[in-house]
Amino acid sequence: MIALDINGADRGPRSVAEGARLSGVPVTLFGPVAELPGETGVVDAPVAIGNDEEPARAVRAKPEASIVVAAKAVASGDCEALVSAGSTGAALAASVFHIKRLHGVHRPAVAVLLPIPGAPTLMLDVGASSEARPEQLVQFAHMGSAFMQAVHGVERPRVGLLSIGEEPNKGTPAVVEAHARLAASPGTIDFIGNVEGHDVPAGAADVVVTDGFTGNVALKLMEGTAKTVTGAVRDAVRSGLVSSLGGLLVRRRVGRLRDELDPNATGGAILLGLRKVVVIAHGSSTPEGIANAVRLADRAVRERVLERMAAALTAAGALRSARADSVGAAND
Amino acid sequence: MIALDINGADRGPRSVAEGARLSGVPVTLFGPVAELPGETGVVDAPVAIGNDEEPARAVRAKPEASIVVAAKAVASGDCEALVSAGSTGAALAASVFHIKRLHGVHRPAVAVLLPIPGAPTLMLDVGASSEARPEQLVQFAHMGSAFMQAVHGVERPRVGLLSIGEEPNKGTPAVVEAHARLAASPGTIDFIGNVEGHDVPAGAADVVVTDGFTGNVALKLMEGTAKTVTGAVRDAVRSGLVSSLGGLLVRRRVGRLRDELDPNATGGAILLGLRKVVVIAHGSSTPEGIANAVRLADRAVRERVLERMAAALTAAGALRSARADSVGAAND
Repeated sequence: MIALDINGADRGPRSVAEGARLSGVPVTLFGPVAELPGETGVVDAPVAIGNDEEPARAVRAKPEASIVVAAKAVASGDCEALVSAGSTGAALAASVFHIKRLHGVHRPAVAVLLPIPGAPTLMLDVGASSEARPEQLVQFAHMGSAFMQAVHGVERPRVGLLSIGEEPNKGTPAVVEAHARLAASPGTIDFIGNVEGHDVPAGAADVVVTDGFTGNVALKLMEGTAKTVTGAVRDAVRSGLVSSLGGLLVRRRVGRLRDELDPNATGGAILLGLRKVVVIAHGSSTPEGIANAVRLADRAVRERVLERMAAALTAAGALRSARADSVGAAND
Repeated sequence: MIALDINGADRGPRSVAEGARLSGVPVTLFGPVAELPGETGVVDAPVAIGNDEEPARAVRAKPEASIVVAAKAVASGDCEALVSAGSTGAALAASVFHIKRLHGVHRPAVAVLLPIPGAPTLMLDVGASSEARPEQLVQFAHMGSAFMQAVHGVERPRVGLLSIGEEPNKGTPAVVEAHARLAASPGTIDFIGNVEGHDVPAGAADVVVTDGFTGNVALKLMEGTAKTVTGAVRDAVRSGLVSSLGGLLVRRRVGRLRDELDPNATGGAILLGLRKVVVIAHGSSTPEGIANAVRLADRAVRERVLERMAAALTAAGALRSARADSVGAAND
């Protein structure tokens, strides 16, 4: 059973509920019953947390908010995984407070599957934290690798560290240190070294590790660039060939490519490093996008991704020891 | 007179010399005379500094290297500006050592004009330093604005700070602090606040300010994504319509779009914050790319970009005072 927060999506609760039905997966909805007449399996939780609220504060101040009630249902075991199309910050805060982090994980990461044609690539972190220490980057590497293995069936995911040159000494001090640790770690993952910006859309790695600031900028740049370029191609085609059959066909093909690059298709972002599976669909998701997010969460549960991730982190010696506990991290 | 280092370009010294001729601008070449029989206006400097050498060390160890000799010719006033298609790091190191920074500038920045169709956008820093303090980001903002005004005729450039949300509190601590300072500075530039990844290819700002790590990753991601997408469009068109006239026309149009997005067209990266104009052409530049880099340097000199930049930094109170001299910065 998947817990689905139906507040906060751009297209409204009905559209999210429709996505739940489309998914074919058993789902409990959390949101405003009044807006879904005739809908069954809804836990009434009309209060929402908006994108404009400070997430941690809002999650504490609104225990009746749908994302909080849904997260608690997952924490208690009533549901197996959490899916939301609302504020990423609120879902992250509610998950850290109620579902909690995996033992020994410094910080959860937001991971997205980049829709690179023919080479789906997991990038993390894309925004859970704006900075990352070396030991966090190392954990991201192992968590991302385990996820791609378990959920996407990549046998030995190639893990790259996003930097500004191939050489191990290129990048910020944190990146250089993370490179050294990953290169020295026993062969638990296939660390291919640094990858640069142009390597990512070329499909050079299955997992791209970076801090949340760089990852967030990178993700939005890729989406924006793809949109600008396909738009320019469309315009070029439309302006010169609108009357020809060839032009029509090309426009259809460009449209299909755009769909392929559509973030809706990949099912949303995944929060890694928590004790349960949490998926965040795009706020602008269509019902099909919501359905994909629900299916992704369901697959992650069935493939036991969390158990595999914990085992991978343990095997790599990448978990935080009690002694090394940092003051800044949230409590276990 | 422009000093042009002809060592280090992927296509060899002859190709660079051809670019110099194409530019129509008076140029002195610095490089291996032996490889350019019959060429006039060449200062013999056969020693090159490669991409694999540690730049600062190599510049100190090889005073006879072409980039060093060329930088000295600019520093002495024999030439007005420096252009190189060799190692960016070596050009930067030679420039900082011999041409020196503008008084009060913390660090030079590498700026590139992003070839966004219809909205050329200056991004800086894209790799001079891997981290940037708030006061450096503030200087980048003023330097970039002055450059776009002087060289590209943008009357009141919109300056955006690259971050992970519009809100002033979004981003790394350095970005948040830089935002506060730019927002509080007198109306010397048109600071439009934070811009996100998707805003950049949409042309939301004329100047995008960021640290060298994020900027380098962003630049290469945009180039790579544009290449992947235009390639996919080409393939889609080719596979279905190769025999039709429409398909041919579309392929030509996609090719033209690709040329528009070609970094060769923009004339290379500019080092801002030095006492003379320094332009670095792509290592893979065609002769036309070199010619564009030379023309860019020439235009920057004629438009007195450095004087305008120094005036803008002074007016904004963004120059480093002697008292605030930081220990880590290079000596003036």
